[in-house]
Amino acid sequence: VAANADYLDLLGITKPTLLLDKARVLRNIERMAAKAAAASVRLRPHCKSHQSAEIAEWLRDYGVHCITVSSVDMACYFADNGWTDVTIAFPVNVLELDRIRALAAKIELGVLVDSEAAVGVLGNALDVPVRVWIKIDTGYGRVGIPWDHHERIVSLARAVQGFRRLDFAGILAHSGHTYYENSIEGIQRVHAESNSGLLTVKKALDSAGLGECMVSIGDTPGCSVAQEFGGVDEIRPGNFVFYDLMQATLGTCTGDDIAVAVACPIVGVYEQRGQVVIYGGAAHLSDGSLLGGTGRRVFGYLSSGEGDSLGLPDYDSPVVSLSQEHGVIEVPRDGLRRMSVGDVVLILPVHSCLTCNLHGEYRTLEGGTILRMPGRSGR
Amino acid sequence: VAANADYLDLLGITKPTLLLDKARVLRNIERMAAKAAAASVRLRPHCKSHQSAEIAEWLRDYGVHCITVSSVDMACYFADNGWTDVTIAFPVNVLELDRIRALAAKIELGVLVDSEAAVGVLGNALDVPVRVWIKIDTGYGRVGIPWDHHERIVSLARAVQGFRRLDFAGILAHSGHTYYENSIEGIQRVHAESNSGLLTVKKALDSAGLGECMVSIGDTPGCSVAQEFGGVDEIRPGNFVFYDLMQATLGTCTGDDIAVAVACPIVGVYEQRGQVVIYGGAAHLSDGSLLGGTGRRVFGYLSSGEGDSLGLPDYDSPVVSLSQEHGVIEVPRDGLRRMSVGDVVLILPVHSCLTCNLHGEYRTLEGGTILRMPGRSGR
Repeated sequence: VAANADYLDLLGITKPTLLLDKARVLRNIERMAAKAAAASVRLRPHCKSHQSAEIAEWLRDYGVHCITVSSVDMACYFADNGWTDVTIAFPVNVLELDRIRALAAKIELGVLVDSEAAVGVLGNALDVPVRVWIKIDTGYGRVGIPWDHHERIVSLARAVQGFRRLDFAGILAHSGHTYYENSIEGIQRVHAESNSGLLTVKKALDSAGLGECMVSIGDTPGCSVAQEFGGVDEIRPGNFVFYDLMQATLGTCTGDDIAVAVACPIVGVYEQRGQVVIYGGAAHLSDGSLLGGTGRRVFGYLSSGEGDSLGLPDYDSPVVSLSQEHGVIEVPRDGLRRMSVGDVVLILPVHSCLTCNLHGEYRTLEGGTILRMPGRSGR
Repeated sequence: VAANADYLDLLGITKPTLLLDKARVLRNIERMAAKAAAASVRLRPHCKSHQSAEIAEWLRDYGVHCITVSSVDMACYFADNGWTDVTIAFPVNVLELDRIRALAAKIELGVLVDSEAAVGVLGNALDVPVRVWIKIDTGYGRVGIPWDHHERIVSLARAVQGFRRLDFAGILAHSGHTYYENSIEGIQRVHAESNSGLLTVKKALDSAGLGECMVSIGDTPGCSVAQEFGGVDEIRPGNFVFYDLMQATLGTCTGDDIAVAVACPIVGVYEQRGQVVIYGGAAHLSDGSLLGGTGRRVFGYLSSGEGDSLGLPDYDSPVVSLSQEHGVIEVPRDGLRRMSVGDVVLILPVHSCLTCNLHGEYRTLEGGTILRMPGRSGR
């Protein structure tokens, strides 16, 4: 029950509302910034997780001066908000060349390529310099050139260098397959293997006479549990600002690192079924799920809220199904007895990035409002 | 490949864009309106699927004069756009009583209850009349009083009638368990069983002297394949305006009834893996999935587009994974050979309601723009 949280009265919640625990966000940022500083790697955090200029300013307070985004829209938004060094960590979308050119004229812009086709279009179109990263696939299998295809990588780097306006920056990877591991050791192993793969690529580029080359990596699980970053120049984690239940399940954060939750009104209490139904569904939480303890799909866990924080996940109270606007939570009998129609409960999200993407703003536990990038997807 | 679609050049798509095939929408509306008219049931379509005042006007052209929504926000939006008879088919959220009161003063408003608690709060607070429906659970198990708990239903109806401003309208159900069936016959059976259950409730209310009582039902699968609606006064399907892959899989629509798709740029072609990667992920399609032919999760299918229509699903080209902004599509070798970085492809959605919810507007194939309800969830 949300009864232990002091801030709910203050916030006056009447419908599904995205809450942000600023103290936790700052602690998460501080920890990652300290880790990057200790390892002498540049922290270029991915801002797709929060998509908020105000939250990006908090990053600046911890020494961050460059960021990562995943679309041209997002790059424009952060450039308009004072960021002058931005990497779009997504295979370059050649249909947005005009906007990329305009942006590159204004800020230091980095883009990603993994094909001669994209390099050709980019190189022929640009009349202002842009930093070009070659995307390497270290085993995730989504985009990029497989790390052991050295010849192809060297050849693509040569193609980049063949264009006057394309500055070959280096190699960049996202080892998203850390999310498939089920132990800290597994994640550390994937992290180490990916990095050693990238270092063989760097060596191959060096041997081919391609000169200085940076190495950029970036997945929150790997960066959270890595003990070293040997040979890496920059890290690009994003989810770490908020973390979520997926990360807590992986063991890459603890429950009290989770810095966002959705506050939802109870609209039905069903004692016989041991369930409550909330106003709060896939439209507010996203359809993202994880495998719960009993092998069932879980779409979130209830949090008690605690004093002035978002509290801890209550693993006995899972969200077991979602429709567009409804959420169904299983609650043990004693918890259920304390719940009534009209109470507000807090749901911790499975994938915080997707959950936040459904909301236009954050409410802080102190009553403030933090805007996200305006407009919805597709606008 | 999108090569057969005439309208893509016209639309000038550069990023993920929600497309609407108006001819299909009108045909879908016409068919459902004709079915309702033939059965002499009132069609009160659910507008959460499209959330657009302009599309609601098309419904009006087919004789619709009353609608269903799933939130107070949506009710306000449609009331502001000229709708004077609106049912909020969601257990009444007592935290929004002020807005409900203001709305009930302006239009004919219907709300749903399934507990004495909600009836008490509502009855004590309202000084203007509101229509109250008792929500019945016909087997879906989400909200409502189970249909065979006649005593509880009669008792709740009496409680409603005990308040001067609450007009007892009748019983209302959503047989969402039609979505769990895997044949037309199965859906028809659930539909028939649900309706006969509701008629026993109606009889019990009548025997208890509660007077005139309407019966309202509403799920797209049931309404699409039902052969009769004996005893039902009103139907509330929503998804039928667009349909989607889930409905096509159920057999409740055909592939060429699907009236929305997301147009997405190709950002990578991976011949060795037989895959293309698009700019278009869970942020544009939603995480919704269905079980594909080989037992794998599928997040959408490619459509060829065809002339001036959205074309048909290509079941050999499934979207096999999504991240926030990336989609991975498996494409047979000959299809892959015709695809290049910078091409635009069309993805048909698994759950059109959730997909549309991620976009601020629709583009018609004629180049028009249709706005959705402003603001994102939580605003």
